Amino acid sequence: MALHIVVLAAGQGTRMRSALPKVLQPLGDRPLLTHVVETAQQLAPARIHVVYGHGAEQVQSALGYLDVAWVHQAEQLGTGHAVAQAIGDIPDDARVLVLYGDVPLIRAETLQTLTEAGGADALSLLTVTLDDPTGYGRIIRDDGNRVVGIVEHRDATVDQRHVREINTGLLCAPAARLRDWLARINDQNTQGEYYLTDIVALAAADGVRVVAGQGGSAEEVQGINDRQDLALAERLLQRRQAAEVMAQGVTLRDPQRFDLRGRLNAGRDCVIDIDVVIEGDVVLGEGVHIGPYTTIRNSRVGDGCTVHSHTVIEHARVGDRCQIGPFARLRPDTDLAERARVGNFVETKNVQVGAGSKINHLSYVGDADLGKDVNVGAGVITCNYDGAAKHRTVIGDGAFIGSDCQLVAPVVVAAGATIGAGSTITKNAPAGKLTVSRSRQITVPGWKRPEKG
Amino acid sequence: MALHIVVLAAGQGTRMRSALPKVLQPLGDRPLLTHVVETAQQLAPARIHVVYGHGAEQVQSALGYLDVAWVHQAEQLGTGHAVAQAIGDIPDDARVLVLYGDVPLIRAETLQTLTEAGGADALSLLTVTLDDPTGYGRIIRDDGNRVVGIVEHRDATVDQRHVREINTGLLCAPAARLRDWLARINDQNTQGEYYLTDIVALAAADGVRVVAGQGGSAEEVQGINDRQDLALAERLLQRRQAAEVMAQGVTLRDPQRFDLRGRLNAGRDCVIDIDVVIEGDVVLGEGVHIGPYTTIRNSRVGDGCTVHSHTVIEHARVGDRCQIGPFARLRPDTDLAERARVGNFVETKNVQVGAGSKINHLSYVGDADLGKDVNVGAGVITCNYDGAAKHRTVIGDGAFIGSDCQLVAPVVVAAGATIGAGSTITKNAPAGKLTVSRSRQITVPGWKRPEKG
Amino acid sequence: MALHIVVLAAGQGTRMRSALPKVLQPLGDRPLLTHVVETAQQLAPARIHVVYGHGAEQVQSALGYLDVAWVHQAEQLGTGHAVAQAIGDIPDDARVLVLYGDVPLIRAETLQTLTEAGGADALSLLTVTLDDPTGYGRIIRDDGNRVVGIVEHRDATVDQRHVREINTGLLCAPAARLRDWLARINDQNTQGEYYLTDIVALAAADGVRVVAGQGGSAEEVQGINDRQDLALAERLLQRRQAAEVMAQGVTLRDPQRFDLRGRLNAGRDCVIDIDVVIEGDVVLGEGVHIGPYTTIRNSRVGDGCTVHSHTVIEHARVGDRCQIGPFARLRPDTDLAERARVGNFVETKNVQVGAGSKINHLSYVGDADLGKDVNVGAGVITCNYDGAAKHRTVIGDGAFIGSDCQLVAPVVVAAGATIGAGSTITKNAPAGKLTVSRSRQITVPGWKRPEKG
Repeated sequence: MALHIVVLAAGQGTRMRSALPKVLQPLGDRPLLTHVVETAQQLAPARIHVVYGHGAEQVQSALGYLDVAWVHQAEQLGTGHAVAQAIGDIPDDARVLVLYGDVPLIRAETLQTLTEAGGADALSLLTVTLDDPTGYGRIIRDDGNRVVGIVEHRDATVDQRHVREINTGLLCAPAARLRDWLARINDQNTQGEYYLTDIVALAAADGVRVVAGQGGSAEEVQGINDRQDLALAERLLQRRQAAEVMAQGVTLRDPQRFDLRGRLNAGRDCVIDIDVVIEGDVVLGEGVHIGPYTTIRNSRVGDGCTVHSHTVIEHARVGDRCQIGPFARLRPDTDLAERARVGNFVETKNVQVGAGSKINHLSYVGDADLGKDVNVGAGVITCNYDGAAKHRTVIGDGAFIGSDCQLVAPVVVAAGATIGAGSTITKNAPAGKLTVSRSRQITVPGWKRPEKG
Repeated sequence: MALHIVVLAAGQGTRMRSALPKVLQPLGDRPLLTHVVETAQQLAPARIHVVYGHGAEQVQSALGYLDVAWVHQAEQLGTGHAVAQAIGDIPDDARVLVLYGDVPLIRAETLQTLTEAGGADALSLLTVTLDDPTGYGRIIRDDGNRVVGIVEHRDATVDQRHVREINTGLLCAPAARLRDWLARINDQNTQGEYYLTDIVALAAADGVRVVAGQGGSAEEVQGINDRQDLALAERLLQRRQAAEVMAQGVTLRDPQRFDLRGRLNAGRDCVIDIDVVIEGDVVLGEGVHIGPYTTIRNSRVGDGCTVHSHTVIEHARVGDRCQIGPFARLRPDTDLAERARVGNFVETKNVQVGAGSKINHLSYVGDADLGKDVNVGAGVITCNYDGAAKHRTVIGDGAFIGSDCQLVAPVVVAAGATIGAGSTITKNAPAGKLTVSRSRQITVPGWKRPEKG
Repeated sequence: MALHIVVLAAGQGTRMRSALPKVLQPLGDRPLLTHVVETAQQLAPARIHVVYGHGAEQVQSALGYLDVAWVHQAEQLGTGHAVAQAIGDIPDDARVLVLYGDVPLIRAETLQTLTEAGGADALSLLTVTLDDPTGYGRIIRDDGNRVVGIVEHRDATVDQRHVREINTGLLCAPAARLRDWLARINDQNTQGEYYLTDIVALAAADGVRVVAGQGGSAEEVQGINDRQDLALAERLLQRRQAAEVMAQGVTLRDPQRFDLRGRLNAGRDCVIDIDVVIEGDVVLGEGVHIGPYTTIRNSRVGDGCTVHSHTVIEHARVGDRCQIGPFARLRPDTDLAERARVGNFVETKNVQVGAGSKINHLSYVGDADLGKDVNVGAGVITCNYDGAAKHRTVIGDGAFIGSDCQLVAPVVVAAGATIGAGSTITKNAPAGKLTVSRSRQITVPGWKRPEKG
C-alpha cells in the first residue's frame, strides 16, 4: 500500500521573533523543514506533500529544489485545514502520515513503527509519556486499554490530568477515511481553527480502530516554537551526532562541546578536542588529532595529521602526516602534500604546497605553487594582487625564502634558490643561487633618540 | 507604607579562600553585593541599609558609590545582631525586608510577593521546597497549615526532617515589631551568635501572623559560601541571561556556552555561535553573526556584520555590513565605517577606517586615519611610536599600500597613491602616484648555501 | 597483613574500535591503567600485579616502567582465570584486592574501606546502589541482611530484579581462600568463561563471611567499554579535578568548561575563564588571570600575571606581573622576566626576555637574549635559521627595534641602540646609536596603476 506523507510547514512562528519563516530556521545549519523531509524520504513514500504558507516566497526560494509536492495554504486555518489542502492529491487506497515542519528530530524508525501500527485500516497516533504533561492533550483509554479519545489539557478532569501519555500530533491514517473525517471537522472552538486532532473522535465514532504507538522519545517529538526550543533541539541533534561519531571510533574529549553541522567521516582513533566545530562535508583519515577551538569546513585531512588549536580550515585538502597550526588559517583551495607544515599566524589560499614544505610563521601565501621541501621563512608575503588582478608565485623544490621577503607575483623562484631576508623579489630568482634586494646597513652619526616629554 | 531593605554583607567568606571579602566576589563580572542592591532598588524602597564588616575598606573602596546607607558592624555576632545595627535608622511604621549580600540571584518579583504576603502586620518568611532539605531549618506548620516555628536540622525530630519546606533566611517584618524582637533574642547557642531566625518564635509567641511565602525557586535563594557555589551561581545567572537574549530574537547556538558579563542589546536574527563572551555594554544590530571563540567588550556592531571566529573586539565601533576576522583584534577606538574589512592576524587601535576599506592580513594599523576604499596589503605596519611619543598616519581615499610596508608616522599617503611592496615610507607620498623605497634585486655570484653538519 | 592488588588489564576493548588496547586509552591524558595503578599505590600494597594480555607489546612499551609485577595472560578465559594467573605469586596470608584496568575512577578511600570491611577472613564485595540496575548482577541478602549470593540480571526473578544494589566486581579476599576458590570455579556457562563472581557462592557455601560494602559512588565504579563511556569518564574526572582546583581558592568561570590533563598548582585568587586547557605540570602564582580559549602546558606563570584570551603557552617560565596575549604563542624555553609583555600574533621560542621588555605585535623572536626594557616593534623577526643551523640574536638593555626589522643571527644589538624601521640587520649594531638599512624613498614618474579589466 502506498504511503503519502504530509508535512505541515505553513506556520509563521511569531515567537521566534524572526524575519525568517519558522521552518527555515537552521538546526545543525540546515532548515528545520529539510530535516523533516530527509527523514520522511527514508520511508520511501510514494510522495511527500509539503503544505506551506507563511513566508511562501522565502520557503520556495530556499527549498524549492526539494523533491516534494508543494501545496500552498493561502490562509492558516488550523492543522486539519492544512492536511485538507493536500488530501485531494492522495489516492484513496494510500496511507497518510502527517508530520510537522517544526518537529525536526523525529526518527525514521519511530515513523516506520507508527505507519505499521494497527494495520492498514487503523488510525495510528504517536504518543509519548511525559513526566510533566501539563498543557498537552491527554490520551484517554477505556478499561480495555483502547484509545477512545484525546482530551485537551484545559478540558481535562482532575483524573484525566493525571494521565501522562500525551498526543504528539503525528499520526497515520487511511486516506479515504481521512478525507471523510477532514470534511466533517469544524472550527467551532475558541481558536476558530480546524484541528486535525478532532478526527480521533470521528474515528472512534466510526468504529475505526485507534492505536496509540509509544515508539518515540519525548526528545524526538519536541516542537520548536521559540529560540529556546531551537537551542534545545540543536543540543539534542548534536548529542545524537556525537554518539554516532564516537561509535565510529573517534574520541571526543567532551561530547557536549562538539558541533557537527554537516557530515563527518572519520577514521578510527581520531581524537577531537574540546570546542571543535565541523561544517559541511569533512573527511578525517585515521589517527587525526584536532586541537581545541578549531573549525573545519568542507575539507579533507589525511592520516596521522595533527591540527593544533585555534585553527580554521576551509575547503582545503591536507595530505597525510601534516602539521597545522596553532593559529593557522587554511583558506579555500589550499592543497598540502604529505608532511607539509603550516604554522602560527599563517594564512594560505589557492596554493599548492609540496611534500615536506614548511610555512611556519606569520606569512601570507596565496595564489602560489610551492615544490617539495621548500622553507618559507617568517613574515613572507606573496604579493598576488596589484590592485586589479591576481598573479601567481611559483617556488621550486628546496628553495629557501628568507624572513620577511615579499614575492611580487607573477614571479618564479627556481629550485634550490635562496632568497635573503627582507628582500622584495620582483624578478625571477635563478636556481641554486642567493638572490637579495638589500640596502647597506649604516649607523647614523650624531643621531639622538627622541625623549619622552 | 515605607519599605526599608537591610542587606547583610559583613561576612568574611573564609571558605572562598580569597583576599577579597565575599560580597565583592564577582558574578557576571559584578560584585555579589551589587546584584543584591540592584535587585533591591527595583522595589523602590525608602532606603537600602547595607551592613558591612569584614574587609570594610575594600568594600567601601569598591562600592562606596552605591546609593545606600552604609552601616558598619564592627564585630560579627550573628544575623540578628547585624540587622540590629541597622534597625535604629528605620522608622517604626516601615516594613523591613532582610536580604543577604551572598544570595545574589534573588528576583525582584519574588521579593515583591514576599513584602506583600500576609499584609502589613505579618512576619513573612521566604521558604522553598527542596528535594533534599538536609542541613536546612525546616518550616513547622500546625494542623491549620499555619507556620508555628522553624526547627534547625540538628534539632529536628525524624518526622520534622521529612519536611522539605525550608527557611531561606529572607524575611519581611514590621519595623517596630522587629526592633522589639531583636532586643529580645540572645546568643545562648552553640555558635554564641544572635540569630535572626529566633524572631520567628517570638513572633508566634506574640500572636503575630507568620506567613511562609513560596514565591521563589531553590535557585534564586542559593547562598554563596565557596567557589563551587560561586561557579554554580555564575551558571544560573548565565542561563537566566541566555533566556532573555533568546527572547529578544537571538539564536544562541548553545545557551550553555554563552557568557554575558554586562548588558547586550541585540537586534533580531542575530546568531551567536558557541563560546562567545560579551562584556560591558555591547550593542549588536540586526542580523549580526558572531563566530565561535570571540569576545566583544563595550562595543557596537552594525546591522548585517559578520564577526568571524577567534576575534577580540574592545571599545570599538563597527559600521553596517563589515566583515571582521577570523583572528582579528580590534583594540580601543577602532572605528570602522560600513563595509570595511579587517582580516586575519590584524590588530587595529585608535583608527578611523573609511567605508569599504580593507586591512585583510597580518597588519598593525594604529593611530591612523584611513579614507574610503583603501587597500592595505598584508604585513603593513604603521610605525606610530618613536620610543617617546605616538604619531598619526593619514591615508587618503583609494590608496593602495603594498605588502609589508612600514608607514613611519607622522606621514600622509595621499588619495589614490600606490605604495610599492616592502617600502619604508618616511615622507609624505603624493596622490595618484607610485611611491617606493626599494633596493635593486641582485643575485650573488659564487654564494653557497650553508649545509647541515 | 600484607595487601596484594591484582589489576585485570588483559581485555581488548573491541567496542572502542581502536588500534590501542583498552587500558591504554587516555583519560585526562594518562592511560586508564595508570589511573588504576596510581590509585592502588596509595594503599601502599606489598605488590601490585597487573594481568595483561591483548596488545601486550603496546602495553609493555607504554607502561613497562610502572613498578608492578606484570603477569601475562596468554588467553583471555574470563576474570576468574585472569586472577588465577596472578594468585601463584601471592602468599597465603595476604589479602588480595582485585581491581580493573578499565575502571579508572575508583577512589583510594573507597578501596581502603573495602579492604578493611569484614576483617581479615571475610570476602568483601564493593557494591553500589543504582537507580536503574538493569543488566547488572544483583546482591542477594537473607532476612538478616547478610549477603548470600549474586544473581546475574538474566537469571534474576522479578523480585530480585527490584534489587538496586549491584555487584561492581571489585572485591577483597584472603589469598589462601581465593586460591582455593579459583581452582574450583569452572567455565560451564554461556560465555564459556571462568567468572570471578562465582567465588561468592563458594565463599557462602564454605561459611566465609561475605560483606557487601557501599563505600563508593556509581560514578567511580563506572567501567569503560566504548568511547561514550570514555567521554563520560573524562567528564567525571574533570568535574572531580575542577572541584579540587576551586577548593584551592581558584575561580573557575565554568567548571564544566575547564580541562586539566595533569597537575595544576594554583595560588589563591586565580581566575580561570572558560575553555582553558591545562596540560602537564603547571604552576600559577597568586592572582593570575587566564583568559578564555587558552592552553598552558608544563609552564610556570608568576604572581599577578594576566594571560589574555587565545594564548598558547608551552614549556615556558613567565615572571611576575607579565602580560601575555591575546593571540600569543610562547613556545618551549621562553623565559620572561617580571613585567615583560608578549602581545598579539607573536611567537617566541628559546628566548630570554628581560624585565619590562615588550614584544607587542606580529613578531617572531626565537633563539634570542633580550635585556631589560627592550622595545621590539611590530613585525620584527629574528632570522635564526640559515637553512642549516640556528644562531643567536642578542639585544641589550633599552634597545629599540623598529617595526618590521629582520635581525639576521648571529648578531648583537647593543644596549640603548635604535634600529630604524624596515631594516635588515646583518652586522652588530653599536650601543646608543641609530642603525638602519634603508633605500631612498622615490616617487616613480609616469607610473599608472593597473586597472581592473
